[in-house]
Amino acid sequence: MRLYLECIPCYLRQVLEAMEMFTDDRDLKEKILREVLEAAADFNTEEIGLMTNAKIHRILKKYAPAGDPYKKEKERMNLICMEMTDEIAAMIEGSKNPFETALRIAIGGNIIDFGQGNDFKAQKIKSTIEYALMQELDGAMIIRLKENIARAKKILYIGDNTGEIVFDRIFIERFFPTDRTIFVVRGGPVMNDATIEDAQMVGMTGIVRVITTGLDMPGTILPHCSEEFLKEYENADLIISKGMGNYEALSSEDKNIFYLLKVKCPVIEDSFKGRYRLGDIIVDDLRYLKNNDR
Amino acid sequence: MRLYLECIPCYLRQVLEAMEMFTDDRDLKEKILREVLEAAADFNTEEIGLMTNAKIHRILKKYAPAGDPYKKEKERMNLICMEMTDEIAAMIEGSKNPFETALRIAIGGNIIDFGQGNDFKAQKIKSTIEYALMQELDGAMIIRLKENIARAKKILYIGDNTGEIVFDRIFIERFFPTDRTIFVVRGGPVMNDATIEDAQMVGMTGIVRVITTGLDMPGTILPHCSEEFLKEYENADLIISKGMGNYEALSSEDKNIFYLLKVKCPVIEDSFKGRYRLGDIIVDDLRYLKNNDR
Repeated sequence: MRLYLECIPCYLRQVLEAMEMFTDDRDLKEKILREVLEAAADFNTEEIGLMTNAKIHRILKKYAPAGDPYKKEKERMNLICMEMTDEIAAMIEGSKNPFETALRIAIGGNIIDFGQGNDFKAQKIKSTIEYALMQELDGAMIIRLKENIARAKKILYIGDNTGEIVFDRIFIERFFPTDRTIFVVRGGPVMNDATIEDAQMVGMTGIVRVITTGLDMPGTILPHCSEEFLKEYENADLIISKGMGNYEALSSEDKNIFYLLKVKCPVIEDSFKGRYRLGDIIVDDLRYLKNNDR
Repeated sequence: MRLYLECIPCYLRQVLEAMEMFTDDRDLKEKILREVLEAAADFNTEEIGLMTNAKIHRILKKYAPAGDPYKKEKERMNLICMEMTDEIAAMIEGSKNPFETALRIAIGGNIIDFGQGNDFKAQKIKSTIEYALMQELDGAMIIRLKENIARAKKILYIGDNTGEIVFDRIFIERFFPTDRTIFVVRGGPVMNDATIEDAQMVGMTGIVRVITTGLDMPGTILPHCSEEFLKEYENADLIISKGMGNYEALSSEDKNIFYLLKVKCPVIEDSFKGRYRLGDIIVDDLRYLKNNDR
């Protein structure tokens, strides 16, 4: 998806939230915001929106301790979700359809996104999971995904956020052929997105092979991804794309991709041409979009 | 109130909404937003926030037909509210405390603010009025305001938005000494704020003397106001300040001011130091703030 002008105020809001995480210094905040606004003024609507987003977040990282404004918050989100592991395992095992329950929880975990406001706590995550368990999902699509997982020779599961990655792990270790599955994290810190450190922290690296996009961008922008990633991407016959950032980057791709996400902003909502609404959780290969002119 | 960094993304959102009102031209929208971002990068937190806001809106006006992006919407809002006049008059006259009812409706009208999202329709206005009629208000403060109106020699009633000005008119014609009351509008178009044309359209000019601030800014920033306004401001022994913009401009003033507004953003909420919350409607002289160091 190319840059929507509506995204720019939202990117700036992310900057303000991120600054709160690492500094109280008013002068520094002003300096950063000024630099961000100047960079934003240079936006390019011919590029994918995530490029502008990445430029803005790179300014933030330049000033943040250890080059990562979200570091502490990411660890905290992983820990909160890790503490819920037993509870969630029990929910899955006690449910009528454990695959669907684990899937729903993995999608529900996609709400853990600082880009959308940073006041998430355990209670909020629990109510989000409850919501994800109740919300309408396309039953035929769930079956199609399950069949695809069963017959795929090589699966690329492209992760999104910290915290959420714990629920991805729970889903993957139960229902994916772990020897044929590769989990993908970002190649460097950007927002609260999961990186290799998070994959290690939550034990993902002990279950499946984990690679990175090679990119510190909040989405898998193919022309910029590493050769290692692109090789695995080409070879994969099933791709799981988590979250809005990966959807933005991959929505026009002609591959066997299942998009798992929660619709958290009106720009993304628009892109679904009425099929999904703000707040919906989605599991869809989006063939209905790809078969039309886009 | 000085500029809060948090206000800047919100100002940009206003720009995006305003552009929708007058153009579909993508190139023009990009050009305007780029110019706005460059201007925003030049923000000054030593200045009152409304100065940055005004700079941004002046860019918009430069490109809008007849120099006013909101012109049609403002007329529409006035018309919608004018059509509600009989209904509102009946509500006031049928209520136990007509002064309080008219006051509540005048404050409720303050929700009609494109700065906060532009999808207002008659139904929304009605539900806002119902909300304003039910919400908690300081009863002692209402009595104090009524007494102040009764004994004031010169009242300056500083208006805010279009649409809302219709409810101000209903309140003023019933409960203010019209020969000792001056209504104030903005000196030029900015957002959906009422100007002299709106005062004429809704019949305010037939009831009381109407003057302008001399300013095309969404608040009464005294150092920039016209001499005519400042003379009346100095002479007034009671000032009614409607809305957040006027509150921002006048909150530190040592005058007999009653602030009537709805708390529509977290920055304004913060300024009340816990006394009022987002969504509250307020009638208050704010002495509790002014007696402390600010």
